[in-house]
Amino acid sequence: MPLKPDLPLPEAESRRIGFAIVGIGKLSAEELIPAARTSEHAAITALVTDDEEKGRAFARAFDLTDADVYTYDRFEELGAREDVDAVYIVLPNSLHREFTERAARMGKHVLCEKPLSVNAAEAQAMVDACQAANVLLMTAYRCQYTPHHWAARGAVQGGKIGPVKLLDSIHAQAEDDPEAWRMKLDLAGGGPLPDVGIYSLNTVRFVLGTEPEWVFATLHQPKDDPLFREVEESVSFMLGFPDGVVANCLTSYGAHKTTTLRVLGEEGAVLMDPAFTYQGLKVTITDQGGEFQPKLPNPDQFGAEFDHFALCIRGGKLPWTPGEEGVQDHRIMDAIYESARTGQVVRLQPVPGRDAFRGEKPEVQGQEG
Amino acid sequence: MPLKPDLPLPEAESRRIGFAIVGIGKLSAEELIPAARTSEHAAITALVTDDEEKGRAFARAFDLTDADVYTYDRFEELGAREDVDAVYIVLPNSLHREFTERAARMGKHVLCEKPLSVNAAEAQAMVDACQAANVLLMTAYRCQYTPHHWAARGAVQGGKIGPVKLLDSIHAQAEDDPEAWRMKLDLAGGGPLPDVGIYSLNTVRFVLGTEPEWVFATLHQPKDDPLFREVEESVSFMLGFPDGVVANCLTSYGAHKTTTLRVLGEEGAVLMDPAFTYQGLKVTITDQGGEFQPKLPNPDQFGAEFDHFALCIRGGKLPWTPGEEGVQDHRIMDAIYESARTGQVVRLQPVPGRDAFRGEKPEVQGQEG
Amino acid sequence: MPLKPDLPLPEAESRRIGFAIVGIGKLSAEELIPAARTSEHAAITALVTDDEEKGRAFARAFDLTDADVYTYDRFEELGAREDVDAVYIVLPNSLHREFTERAARMGKHVLCEKPLSVNAAEAQAMVDACQAANVLLMTAYRCQYTPHHWAARGAVQGGKIGPVKLLDSIHAQAEDDPEAWRMKLDLAGGGPLPDVGIYSLNTVRFVLGTEPEWVFATLHQPKDDPLFREVEESVSFMLGFPDGVVANCLTSYGAHKTTTLRVLGEEGAVLMDPAFTYQGLKVTITDQGGEFQPKLPNPDQFGAEFDHFALCIRGGKLPWTPGEEGVQDHRIMDAIYESARTGQVVRLQPVPGRDAFRGEKPEVQGQEG
Amino acid sequence: MPLKPDLPLPEAESRRIGFAIVGIGKLSAEELIPAARTSEHAAITALVTDDEEKGRAFARAFDLTDADVYTYDRFEELGAREDVDAVYIVLPNSLHREFTERAARMGKHVLCEKPLSVNAAEAQAMVDACQAANVLLMTAYRCQYTPHHWAARGAVQGGKIGPVKLLDSIHAQAEDDPEAWRMKLDLAGGGPLPDVGIYSLNTVRFVLGTEPEWVFATLHQPKDDPLFREVEESVSFMLGFPDGVVANCLTSYGAHKTTTLRVLGEEGAVLMDPAFTYQGLKVTITDQGGEFQPKLPNPDQFGAEFDHFALCIRGGKLPWTPGEEGVQDHRIMDAIYESARTGQVVRLQPVPGRDAFRGEKPEVQGQEG
Repeated sequence: MPLKPDLPLPEAESRRIGFAIVGIGKLSAEELIPAARTSEHAAITALVTDDEEKGRAFARAFDLTDADVYTYDRFEELGAREDVDAVYIVLPNSLHREFTERAARMGKHVLCEKPLSVNAAEAQAMVDACQAANVLLMTAYRCQYTPHHWAARGAVQGGKIGPVKLLDSIHAQAEDDPEAWRMKLDLAGGGPLPDVGIYSLNTVRFVLGTEPEWVFATLHQPKDDPLFREVEESVSFMLGFPDGVVANCLTSYGAHKTTTLRVLGEEGAVLMDPAFTYQGLKVTITDQGGEFQPKLPNPDQFGAEFDHFALCIRGGKLPWTPGEEGVQDHRIMDAIYESARTGQVVRLQPVPGRDAFRGEKPEVQGQEG
Repeated sequence: MPLKPDLPLPEAESRRIGFAIVGIGKLSAEELIPAARTSEHAAITALVTDDEEKGRAFARAFDLTDADVYTYDRFEELGAREDVDAVYIVLPNSLHREFTERAARMGKHVLCEKPLSVNAAEAQAMVDACQAANVLLMTAYRCQYTPHHWAARGAVQGGKIGPVKLLDSIHAQAEDDPEAWRMKLDLAGGGPLPDVGIYSLNTVRFVLGTEPEWVFATLHQPKDDPLFREVEESVSFMLGFPDGVVANCLTSYGAHKTTTLRVLGEEGAVLMDPAFTYQGLKVTITDQGGEFQPKLPNPDQFGAEFDHFALCIRGGKLPWTPGEEGVQDHRIMDAIYESARTGQVVRLQPVPGRDAFRGEKPEVQGQEG
Repeated sequence: MPLKPDLPLPEAESRRIGFAIVGIGKLSAEELIPAARTSEHAAITALVTDDEEKGRAFARAFDLTDADVYTYDRFEELGAREDVDAVYIVLPNSLHREFTERAARMGKHVLCEKPLSVNAAEAQAMVDACQAANVLLMTAYRCQYTPHHWAARGAVQGGKIGPVKLLDSIHAQAEDDPEAWRMKLDLAGGGPLPDVGIYSLNTVRFVLGTEPEWVFATLHQPKDDPLFREVEESVSFMLGFPDGVVANCLTSYGAHKTTTLRVLGEEGAVLMDPAFTYQGLKVTITDQGGEFQPKLPNPDQFGAEFDHFALCIRGGKLPWTPGEEGVQDHRIMDAIYESARTGQVVRLQPVPGRDAFRGEKPEVQGQEG
Repeated sequence: MPLKPDLPLPEAESRRIGFAIVGIGKLSAEELIPAARTSEHAAITALVTDDEEKGRAFARAFDLTDADVYTYDRFEELGAREDVDAVYIVLPNSLHREFTERAARMGKHVLCEKPLSVNAAEAQAMVDACQAANVLLMTAYRCQYTPHHWAARGAVQGGKIGPVKLLDSIHAQAEDDPEAWRMKLDLAGGGPLPDVGIYSLNTVRFVLGTEPEWVFATLHQPKDDPLFREVEESVSFMLGFPDGVVANCLTSYGAHKTTTLRVLGEEGAVLMDPAFTYQGLKVTITDQGGEFQPKLPNPDQFGAEFDHFALCIRGGKLPWTPGEEGVQDHRIMDAIYESARTGQVVRLQPVPGRDAFRGEKPEVQGQEG
C-alpha cells in the first residue's frame, strides 16, 4: 500500500468523495483505511465507532481530528457533514440493514461489506430503502474488481477455453475464537457460507455471468465442538447453471486455508489458486497450446472498490455490484441452507440474461474493458 | 519403461507367474505389455485377440510365437497351458464377466481392468464365480499401487494434516470418437463415471480408508450431441462419509484433461495434481510449516499391479484390491446414477471398519508399509 | 503495510527512535516512509529534501508539520532536534559520504542505503567518520533481515544440503531513463553492479558467511546506446570462496527483471526465486526427501531494518550490517571492475572467520536465532 | 516408450536403417535399445560387446539371435552385414576414435555418443576419417532434437524475448563410484565438464546459434577425495559470445542433481528447468504479457536421434549435429581446461555466421521448422 510519490495535495483531497467508515475492526484497520489512501477518488473523512480511544488513534493517524470520530448513537450527526458523501459499513452482518437504512435516510450513499445482510428478505429491504431514498447501494465484492478475476472471466467468456462445462471452488479457513461475532448466528446469519463460501458462490456467478437454477447442499455442524455451537463448520454445495453447467463448492471454518477456483471448458481450463486472497492472486489459463500465467497489476482490492463507488456516486451510475447483486447471493444462500436442512434439491427462480444484477462495468487495471 | 540392464535370463522367466493378455487395444499395447517387461514376478505368456495379425505382430515383438496367440473362441485352450497362471482382462466392460467366468472355470486367476463390470450385480457375480472356482480376482486399480498415492494416504491417515474435513477431486477429459466402445452404453455400462470418474471415487475411498454413507449426483447428457447419444457427458457427485466428511467430485468426457485430488484437514492439506496420470504424479503436502513435495520413485504403475498380483498368486493371498473392492465402487456408482435419475440423495449400506474391501497390503516403492 | 489495529498512541511514539529521512525519491515515498509506520521502535520525525512542496505534502501525510521539513543546506539544523536520533540517507550514492559525515558531526547515527558509497576508499572514510564521532553506521541491506534469507542461510549453514559446492545468482532489470541518477557515473559510481548486482554479491556472502578470495569479471557497455553512455549495461562475475566454492553471478540494466539465488550442496540445494524483491520472496529447500517451501512471515523489509537499527541505537550495539559490511562489498566491487578492465583474475585480501564484518544478529520473524 | 499399436511388420523392418550398438552399458540398456523400438526409420540389427552373456540376453529380448552378437575383436565382421548400415558407439570416450575409424573403414556410418572424443585433435581425426571414407558422422546431442529445446531456441531467435543479453546454465549431479570409467582421466578425458557440463555448453551454443569468442574457467579438484583422484569435481566457466552476450555455466560431479538453462533477453526470458533430463523437460517463456509454458510432445529423445540419422543416411544429408559440431565443443572444452590451468582468459578462433557447424535441420515434433 505504498503512498504514491505524486501524492495528491489537500486541494485535490477536498474534491474526493468522502466516506465515513462505520465500524473499526481488523478489516477496517488493516485493509480499508490503508486502501483509502491508495484511492484516487475517495477519502476517509469520518470514523464511526463506540471505541472512542481507538477512533481517536485512527483519526490522528489519518489526518482527521477527534471531531471526526462519532459514536454509533451520534451516527445521524454525519447528515450535516457535507464532506461525507457515503458510508462504508463494516459491522456484523445483522447490523448492515439498520445502518444502511439510517444512512439512506440521511441521503448518504452506502457501500456495505459482504454479505449484504443475513438473508434475502433483509437484504431486499436494504435495496428498497436505498431506492426510496435515492441513494446508491453497493455490495463490497472485492473479487469483482481485480485484474485477476477479470482475466479469468475474460478467458471464460471470450471463448478461450471453449464452452464451459464444470466449475469447482473452495474457500476454507480455520477459525478458533468462539467469541468472534462471526461464530454467533444472530450476528452473522450463518457460518462459513455467508462469510467465505460466498466468495466461491459470487465468483462462480461472476465468471459465468449467468445465474444458478438449482442448488443442492449438505452441511456439517459437529455436536460437541464449542466453536460450532451456533454456526455450521462446513458446507458442500452444488450449483446447477443453464446448459448443464455445474459448480461444486466447498467452504469451511474448520480446515486449512484454501482458496481455489477452477473452470473446465471443452478446450481448456482456468485455474485461480489462490483465488480469493487479498494479495498474491494467480491465474493460469490452459488451452491446447499450453499454460499461461498473465502478468497483471496488483492494485489494492479495497482501493479499487472505493474508486469504483466514488465514480458511480460522481456520475450517478449503478455500481457493478449493487445491492441487487448481494440480494441474489442471499437468495442462493437461503436455498443452500434450505437444501441442507431438507436434503432436497432446491430450485431457484430462473434469471434470464447475463449479469442480470450488475450495473456499470468498473475500470479495472490491465483490462481492456 | 527401460529394460533393466540386469535382464533376467530365460530360466528366470520360466519361474515367473504367466499372464495371458485378453484383448489387445491401446492400453495393452502402450502400457500393459511394456509394463510386463518391467515386472519382477510376472511374464506375458499368451495373447488373446481376434485380430490375429496384430496378435502375431505383438507375439514376435515379445518373444512369443504365433502359437501363443489365441482367438476369443479358442480361449479355453489356455486351460492346458501350464505357463498361463492368470489372465489379464482388457476388454470392453460388459465382457468382463463372461471372460472372468470362463477363466475361473479353467482355474486361472483373474486380473480385471477397472471398472470391474457394468454394475454391482454383474460385478458380484464375478466375485462369486472366482470364489466358487477358488481362483483370485483382482481389480486393476493402478492408483492404489503408486508411491504417490500411498504418500497421500499416509499424510491423511498419519495425522499430518489433522482430522480430515473435506475432499475434492476431478477427473475429466475430452473424448471425440463416437464409435469408441466407451461411448456405447451396452459395452461400457456408463460414460465418464465408470471410466474416469471412478478414479476420483476409488481414490477418495482409498485415501480415507472408510466408505461413503450417501451420495448425491447430477449428470448432463446434451440432447443433440452425437457423441453423447448413449452415455452422459459429465457427472457431478457428492459423497458423504462418516463424521461429516464430504467429497465433491467432477467427471467429464467433454472437458479439458484435468486430474486432481485435494484433501483438506484441520491443520493442513494434501494436493495431488496431476492425480491420476500414468506418469508425472505430483503430491504436495501442506502443513503449518510450509509445503512439501516428497521425492518419490516412479515405478511403472501397471508393472506394480502385475507384481502384486503375481505375489498374491504365489502366496495365496487376497490382493489389496480384490473383486470386492470393485463391487463396492459399482454399488456407489449405481447409487450415483440413481441419485442423478431421481434427484434425491441415495443412502448406502453402512460399512464399518477400515479398508473393509481390501486385502494384503502391497509392497510399494518408497513407502515403509 | 497495514496499519496495526493496536495503533501505538502518541506517547509511545515519542519514545521511539526518531529518524530524519534524507532524500525523498521513489524509494522513500513508496517503501521507507510506509515501512516506518510498521516499525515497532522507529518513527520518522523529520524530512530533508530540496523539493519543499513535496516535503510538505509528505509531512502532512505523516503527521509531521511544515516545520519538520528541511532543505539540504539546513541539514545541520537537525542537530538541535532531540527527536532526531538518526538519519536515513536515501540520496545518490556519491552523496552518501558527505551526508554521513555531516550527520556524524552532529552526533546523529546513520542508516545509509546500499551501496554504502561509490568505492571502498570513500566507504571506509564513512566508517572512520562515524567511528570518530562515536555514532553507529548501518548499511541498509534489507535482504539480510528477511525470514526468507535467514531460512536460506539456515539451510546452507545448518548442513541440510550437505557441504556447499557452487552458487549462482542473477539480479537483472531493464532500465530506460538515461536521465536517472543511477545512469550517471559520478552520482552512482557504476551501473547495475553497485545497484542491483550488489544483492547477488551481498547475499552470496551472507548465505555462506565467508569471504571471497578472488574475482573474475567481464562487463558489457554497448557503444552506441545513449542509455549506457556512462555506466555498463551488464556484468558477469565469478567469486572464488574458500574450499573451491565458486559463485557465478549476472547483473544487468538491460534485461528482463530476474532475481534468483541458487546454492548447490552435495546432498541438496536451496533456490530463492524471486530472491531480492520487496515482496513475494520464495525459498525452496531440496534434499534427498523432496522439495520444501517453508511458510514464512512477510514482515516489511524496510520496517525490519528500521527496527534493528533502532534497537542497536537503544542498546549501543553494532548493527548486523554495519558500515564495514558495506566497505567489504565495495572492496569486492572495486576488484570486479578491475578484473573487467584488465581481463585478469583479481585476488582479494583473505578474511578468515565467519561473518567477519557483521555485528549483532537481528531478531528475524519466524527464525529461532 | 510404448510399443505402438500399429506395430510395423517385419517387411517394413527390413527396410529400416540398421544399427549395430557398440557397447552395452546402462545407457544402451535403459535408453538406446528401448528408443530404437520407438524409431520410425531405424532398427537395431546387431550388438557388439565383450560380455557375451549380456549380449545374448539383449539379443533375445530384441528379436535378434546369438549370431547378431559380436565381440569387439570381431567388430570387422559387421562389414559383411548388409543390414548394418551404421554403428552407434556407446563406449568410454577414449575409445570413440578407434571404433569410429574401424567403422569408417568398413563403410559404415557412425553415430557417436557425446562427447565426440577426449579432445579436439582426436575428435578432428574422427571427422577426417569419416570424410575420407565417405561415411556420415553424427554426434549424439539429444538435446538438439527435442521439441522443448527447439521451443527455447525459437523463442530466443524469433525475437520473443528481445535481444539476448545473458545466459546461465547448470548441469550438476552427485557421483559416488570411483571405479566408474567416467572417473578415469584416460578413459573419459575429463570429469563433469565433458560428461554433463557439455550439455550447458552445447545448448547455449544451440540456442544462440553463434559461437563463443573467449572463455574463462576455474575448476575444483579436492585433494584428498578418492572420488576425484583423476578428474575434477566441478568447473565454473564463462563463455563470451559476440555483442557482449555472456553465458555463466556451472557443472559438477559433487552436487545435487540440477539441470537448468536461463536466457535473459531485453524484453523477456526463457527458462528450462529441468533442462537436460531424459523426461519431464519444462520450458517457461516470459515476456511482458506473462509466463507461458507451451504444451509440447515428449517423443523419446534417443528415438529422435535414431530417426534423424537414419533419414540423413537415406538421403545423403549432413546431420544437424555432425562430427564438426562435436569438434567445436572439444575446442571450447580444451580452452576451458586451459583457462582453468592458467587462470587466464583464453580466446577462441572467431566463427562467423550462424549454426556454423550444423547440417540438415531435423524434423522435430511440435515445431514448424
